[in-house]
Amino acid sequence: MPRHPHKAAFPVSEARRYLEPGPIVLISSCWQGERNIMTLGWHTILAFTPSLVGCMIASGNHSHDLIRHSRECVINLPTTALTDTVVGIGNTSGADLDKFDHFHLTARPATQVGAPLIDECHASFECRLVEDALVKRYSFFVFEIVQAHVAPTPKHPETLHYTGDGVFMVAGKVISRRGLFRPEML
Amino acid sequence: MPRHPHKAAFPVSEARRYLEPGPIVLISSCWQGERNIMTLGWHTILAFTPSLVGCMIASGNHSHDLIRHSRECVINLPTTALTDTVVGIGNTSGADLDKFDHFHLTARPATQVGAPLIDECHASFECRLVEDALVKRYSFFVFEIVQAHVAPTPKHPETLHYTGDGVFMVAGKVISRRGLFRPEML
Repeated sequence: MPRHPHKAAFPVSEARRYLEPGPIVLISSCWQGERNIMTLGWHTILAFTPSLVGCMIASGNHSHDLIRHSRECVINLPTTALTDTVVGIGNTSGADLDKFDHFHLTARPATQVGAPLIDECHASFECRLVEDALVKRYSFFVFEIVQAHVAPTPKHPETLHYTGDGVFMVAGKVISRRGLFRPEML
Repeated sequence: MPRHPHKAAFPVSEARRYLEPGPIVLISSCWQGERNIMTLGWHTILAFTPSLVGCMIASGNHSHDLIRHSRECVINLPTTALTDTVVGIGNTSGADLDKFDHFHLTARPATQVGAPLIDECHASFECRLVEDALVKRYSFFVFEIVQAHVAPTPKHPETLHYTGDGVFMVAGKVISRRGLFRPEML
């Protein structure tokens, strides 16, 4: 697997393909020249069109304020090739170091938001904050995915799914039951 | 794997162990004598204590009204042993049939809510609605898990993670990086 997977534009309405399985993601953000990355397992798809995703970003995270102020972020999808980097990012704070530099990650300019894409990831979803009604009480942000970049291969990359306690489940094997679905349910 | 996994009480604050990886779940509900089951992939943990989980339950689902009125549900975790049942539940409507009967599933009484547990599942989480501010606009329900029942073995059951288009990723293999985590991050 290349260290910098080549990505192509991808329909934002199909972002569920990568996010609905519930992988650990890396959220990149930028505000007034300061950038950061955090790991996140607490997210859910909320709608196809507009393409909405909800994320619980706890206020103790350095990224919380960057995202609340900039009202933007990028959701990046790492594969198992980045496992140790994912753990390292989750174990450090952007208050102490620049995580792009520290973890030798490549920040690429996004097309519609100020937050950078993480080039080493399999996919990146540029997001704008569209609903903050639950931010104060639950740190729950509703974002619209406004641009998606996805590596066309592999079609089903191995992703990390966090269980707590330092343990990840790995998803990669797939099973299809396409033939059992009513067409309108696909 | 037994068809009716024996379950024990489990700490509600540790529900993330099973839900954070993002599996497809079966939501059971009951309102005024009518019960139903739906499949759901759009959920996220929101807090440990209280144990909060957010679910996007689209208003087109028969379960939406049962849950909105009863303000309760049970989140049940199926394994790959139930793959075809999961697909069948997602392809039918509770407006037309009783899914417990139709899919030969066993409804067991819950301890704190009126909705039934699905006995064939690996785990069941009894939930009460605690926040409905985003229900009207996004069909997003915030539940508190008030009681948890989990089969002690296997420790990491194979779970289904939906990608759309009739295709599920399977998670079961685990990798531990426990030694790389700062203790307070576990």
